[in-house]
Amino acid sequence: MQKITIKTFFIAALVFINFCVVSAQNLEMERRNLMPVPANVAWKTGRLPVAKNFSVAVKGQTDERLKNYIFRVIRRLEGRTVLELPRAMASDANAAQLLIETNSTGNAIPKLGDDESYNLEISEAQAKLTAPTTVGAMRGLETFLQLLESDKDGFYFPAVSINDKPRFAWRGLMIDSARHFQPMEVLRRNLDAMAAVKLNVLHWHLTEDQGFRVETKKFPELHLQGSDGDFYTQEQIREIIKYAADRGIRVMPEFDMPGHATAWLVSHPEIGSGKPGETYTIERRPGIFDPTLDPTNEKTYKLLKEFFKEMAALFPDAYMHIGGDENEGKQWDANPKIQAFKREKGIKDNHQLQTYFNKRILKFLQDNDKIMMGWDEIFQPDLPKDVVIHSWRGQKALADAAKQGFQGVLSNGYYIDLMYPARDHYAVDPIPADTSLTADEQKRVLGGEATMWSEWVSPDTIDSRIWTRAAAIAERFWSPREINQIDDMYRRLAVIDVRLEELGLTHRKNQAMLLRRLANNQDVSALQTFVSVIEPIKGYSRYGQLKQTMLSPLTGLVDAAQADAPDARIFNREVEQMIVNNTFNDAAPVRRMLQTWNNAQAKLAPTAENSAALSNVKPLIQNWRGVNEIALEAVGYLEKNDAATTDWRDARLKTLAEIGKPQAAIEFAALPGIKMLVAAASEMPNLKNLAPNERLELVRNIAFPKPAPKK
Amino acid sequence: MQKITIKTFFIAALVFINFCVVSAQNLEMERRNLMPVPANVAWKTGRLPVAKNFSVAVKGQTDERLKNYIFRVIRRLEGRTVLELPRAMASDANAAQLLIETNSTGNAIPKLGDDESYNLEISEAQAKLTAPTTVGAMRGLETFLQLLESDKDGFYFPAVSINDKPRFAWRGLMIDSARHFQPMEVLRRNLDAMAAVKLNVLHWHLTEDQGFRVETKKFPELHLQGSDGDFYTQEQIREIIKYAADRGIRVMPEFDMPGHATAWLVSHPEIGSGKPGETYTIERRPGIFDPTLDPTNEKTYKLLKEFFKEMAALFPDAYMHIGGDENEGKQWDANPKIQAFKREKGIKDNHQLQTYFNKRILKFLQDNDKIMMGWDEIFQPDLPKDVVIHSWRGQKALADAAKQGFQGVLSNGYYIDLMYPARDHYAVDPIPADTSLTADEQKRVLGGEATMWSEWVSPDTIDSRIWTRAAAIAERFWSPREINQIDDMYRRLAVIDVRLEELGLTHRKNQAMLLRRLANNQDVSALQTFVSVIEPIKGYSRYGQLKQTMLSPLTGLVDAAQADAPDARIFNREVEQMIVNNTFNDAAPVRRMLQTWNNAQAKLAPTAENSAALSNVKPLIQNWRGVNEIALEAVGYLEKNDAATTDWRDARLKTLAEIGKPQAAIEFAALPGIKMLVAAASEMPNLKNLAPNERLELVRNIAFPKPAPKK
Repeated sequence: MQKITIKTFFIAALVFINFCVVSAQNLEMERRNLMPVPANVAWKTGRLPVAKNFSVAVKGQTDERLKNYIFRVIRRLEGRTVLELPRAMASDANAAQLLIETNSTGNAIPKLGDDESYNLEISEAQAKLTAPTTVGAMRGLETFLQLLESDKDGFYFPAVSINDKPRFAWRGLMIDSARHFQPMEVLRRNLDAMAAVKLNVLHWHLTEDQGFRVETKKFPELHLQGSDGDFYTQEQIREIIKYAADRGIRVMPEFDMPGHATAWLVSHPEIGSGKPGETYTIERRPGIFDPTLDPTNEKTYKLLKEFFKEMAALFPDAYMHIGGDENEGKQWDANPKIQAFKREKGIKDNHQLQTYFNKRILKFLQDNDKIMMGWDEIFQPDLPKDVVIHSWRGQKALADAAKQGFQGVLSNGYYIDLMYPARDHYAVDPIPADTSLTADEQKRVLGGEATMWSEWVSPDTIDSRIWTRAAAIAERFWSPREINQIDDMYRRLAVIDVRLEELGLTHRKNQAMLLRRLANNQDVSALQTFVSVIEPIKGYSRYGQLKQTMLSPLTGLVDAAQADAPDARIFNREVEQMIVNNTFNDAAPVRRMLQTWNNAQAKLAPTAENSAALSNVKPLIQNWRGVNEIALEAVGYLEKNDAATTDWRDARLKTLAEIGKPQAAIEFAALPGIKMLVAAASEMPNLKNLAPNERLELVRNIAFPKPAPKK
Repeated sequence: MQKITIKTFFIAALVFINFCVVSAQNLEMERRNLMPVPANVAWKTGRLPVAKNFSVAVKGQTDERLKNYIFRVIRRLEGRTVLELPRAMASDANAAQLLIETNSTGNAIPKLGDDESYNLEISEAQAKLTAPTTVGAMRGLETFLQLLESDKDGFYFPAVSINDKPRFAWRGLMIDSARHFQPMEVLRRNLDAMAAVKLNVLHWHLTEDQGFRVETKKFPELHLQGSDGDFYTQEQIREIIKYAADRGIRVMPEFDMPGHATAWLVSHPEIGSGKPGETYTIERRPGIFDPTLDPTNEKTYKLLKEFFKEMAALFPDAYMHIGGDENEGKQWDANPKIQAFKREKGIKDNHQLQTYFNKRILKFLQDNDKIMMGWDEIFQPDLPKDVVIHSWRGQKALADAAKQGFQGVLSNGYYIDLMYPARDHYAVDPIPADTSLTADEQKRVLGGEATMWSEWVSPDTIDSRIWTRAAAIAERFWSPREINQIDDMYRRLAVIDVRLEELGLTHRKNQAMLLRRLANNQDVSALQTFVSVIEPIKGYSRYGQLKQTMLSPLTGLVDAAQADAPDARIFNREVEQMIVNNTFNDAAPVRRMLQTWNNAQAKLAPTAENSAALSNVKPLIQNWRGVNEIALEAVGYLEKNDAATTDWRDARLKTLAEIGKPQAAIEFAALPGIKMLVAAASEMPNLKNLAPNERLELVRNIAFPKPAPKK
């Protein structure tokens, strides 16, 4: 009995190998907290522990950018582990826990197309990060930090082999500093967050109807009169460019013209297209406005020529964005001089007139070695082929441009200011699987940009509008197209959410702060529950409901609410799963959530009564109970496997359409799930006879009759 | 029956008058959210509503400081009310809701003794703020903002008549930017908070063993080699001085010498008192260190003369603090050259040698029109009488100096870095009621300063160490001595707590952030409960338990914990009240809290198991249950009016002394209440036979045998 036969040995070995495979799969499931997911990941068994002696060594080149990046990464590692780690680099490369090897510094100021690839091999002895350039090492270091795990035995990095590079070279975040000025620290912390999820372009929207935010030395009246004093000095701009470069991020400025130009005209009305003698003040409302630069006036070009020369020297990036969007030409149509100019030059419409303007501007950019970028409207076939089309119109516009030889960047689908959920943005691909583009044409699609238009964000709330949804978009730009599982994306997003806080982001902590202020020194727990099931209204409806301006305080409940209300998302998902899996007999989790909400509602109503800052959401809080009660009624039918009448159902859906309406620019985020509960109740007990997908489709068709909702 | 007799009318009138008096008293109780409490407040009935048209007018002078202060106050009012208010000043002063009248700008850079008084009259028609100077108006505007109330009818200011001025002219907060460097935004937001509670001196501790934080143009090696690159440029210092002045706050720098001087000696070892050729590195540990400037070396004075000349030009305040504390003279005793110097000059001890040094420094300050300030150690009778003694030793030292004609500022009792509760600081008065000082001598006690020594604070945690306790201290410095009710102070502190957040302070929001990071993506609710009943260890014991340095990450549970753990404070108070009032039959609130804690403990234990960052607090979490269980046992006796044996009591107190011990620099803040429960249990059922105070004293004597505890 003590002898092990060959056969027994083989069986044991097979069991062991099988165990290892299963373990590796489990590890893969558990450890995939990476976002963006790398191009190639092979999980291994084993772990590299992190202890007080955790040391770093560098081989090859070590420029200041790399050294400083490593320094910051190790400080973040310290923050998480609460361990003081050595500050000096290890002298023995082989003994260091983390070894970084790069051969080239790459461009000190990043350029489009820089090599961002890296290789990361973690074994039980060492993590080895190799990259051709400093920027590649930065990307790898962020992956490394995301790998950190902890359990009862301590902190560790799991053994893994990662070979990674981005799918798209242009992975941007546009920040609109014009409508609401954003102080330096907002930019700095968001640049840190961008680097953490491997975004590499800050598209900086600097001029608008509502503000001219860049200091110009040649025309100081532009920023002095156009900004209420809230502008970036050139020294600050250089600081941001360096801060970004130190994180491998390009900074491309946008000067929006000829429309969106009111702030220019406050000090230079003579280059506007209005009536002679017309004066302008900084615009305070949101929307599209008439003031437009005059493309027929040589003074316009005289000023812009000098302006672009100055800006070209200030901003080192090869690209410069001239906007070009949403010029409705009303001033042009109303101006006899401009009409005469069009006739004289044979310009047949305003689009042609704008093209004339763009070509003049193009010359200024070319004179300063800049490549022009602009929104869809600037597109027309005889532009030079290096011009980049920035598409708010969509993939088709982008594809059309690509077929004509133009490069493009997609933003349609990535308008994070509109408060749609992360899943919606995540589903948009710059080059969808069914693209009609050839391989060469596909190369012209450079990538995409999330756009943070700032009508309704203050420095206190902007982080919560960008993050964490921008991390899901960053994954779309970096990772293979096939990385597209919604549930897994949300699971990982929850991890990133907390980790982004170590960079100083306020996306989570300022929500609680806003709620405390709103509650007027009362208990906020019920308000916390409420805010986890409501969302700001989507799209462009906020202004219609609240009539706020750029000067309004953004401290209301709508500003504390976030896209992707967490409890509502879980609820909607539970309901969907219950329908798909025919598990109506186990509706307890759904019932429990609804009861929690009703309890919170009972507490919240008197709180709102005593806080005038909540007065405009009192009807909403009132309706919350009504909505929940209908859901509980429906759950009652489902649990009893009992059919509700279609009269009941139609009456309830009608009531939901009324009391579930958005108010104070806030909507009930659990409404889709609740409508589905009501719809399902009327189809009991026969739902079980259908296939899972048929069940879901039937219920959806009843809950959301024509047209199908966006989510 | 329809006729009202004279008599009936009179009775009705009397009832009505009585009603008004009672109402006014209730209002007084409810509305006293002011902190510091003004010198004279007379509440009235009626309210001034705040609506969209809320307007401000100014009469008399309007300097930029006042205009900007009003602008910021109105923005804060907007933030709370979520109303966009007019930005332009009202042209009709009588129609404005807020009218501000000042006749003099006062000093643009505040000076000691500036008139800070104001008068605020709020009626149903208008709030009228009058002040002799701009700074007085600032103080009044903060009171005005604190008066804001809200109910179901909206926001309003209660009618009131306030006549206010400070008790002390010197009301300071010392921030130690040397041990842990604090970035500009930390200073800015804390200056805003200081102004909100009427503190008027930022004492800026800029040099230490652990860092030299001020740029010098003449000796750049001092800050370059002594700061790890973390120093304030002179431009930044000027920015802080202006920022402070715009809020009526003086900025007094401290350059600590001759001890606490290691960072000076990194670049200038030749002026140290060590062995010839001795070199120095920036100190990383906390404590008192040997490196000391050499008072016998003319090179020392040559450098300091130039240094003070440069700093005197940089800092406009009339006072300059030279530290002078904790020089233990070890280097002096060990240095033969210094010994020889002493003999030669007839200097008999190190205190005399330091006096010799101080007199040389005093000359440099006088040459630059600066008045010297220093810690107790600098005191000696033949200093000029305008020198200010800064007392860390206590009121007696201060009184002694005052009797000899010296002015003084008290900091003993206001060491907020030591994590004692607000009540302790609040109880310390710069001039206690039983003072032996004459009226003239009392005038020499200029005020006090809270001291934020920064051994254990990072930019992320410093706000939570300063606030809100500094608000209670600010009240001690501003309000009449008789304003000293602890419960009411805590009630008002809770209001201020939330309002300070509108200034960007992170004292509340960063706690949740730290807990989320510690929890490693697990639910933090149980951790939240735990942190509400634990406190950082008090006094100087932290280093002994954690052995951290200035380079350690301050992201542990102890860093998330705060002085005045809120739930523990309520618990301890409940227990005390139960004993005083003999309401043991109604122990339900106490029992409920203990059960809530036990529930949280059960949830927290597995969380800690899965987060390595919590590994060093696992024993503490384990003991939490034991501590609570003992308390529940005691509550059992009390509820049954049943006597526990003294054996039981002694055994339990012994166990509490063991398992209740601080660990990981954290202590159980409810332990005092729990010990009192145990002590009370052993005295049942006879406690009821004692007078309330006798009951409390008896229980305390058992719970806290010799010596009586600090709290």
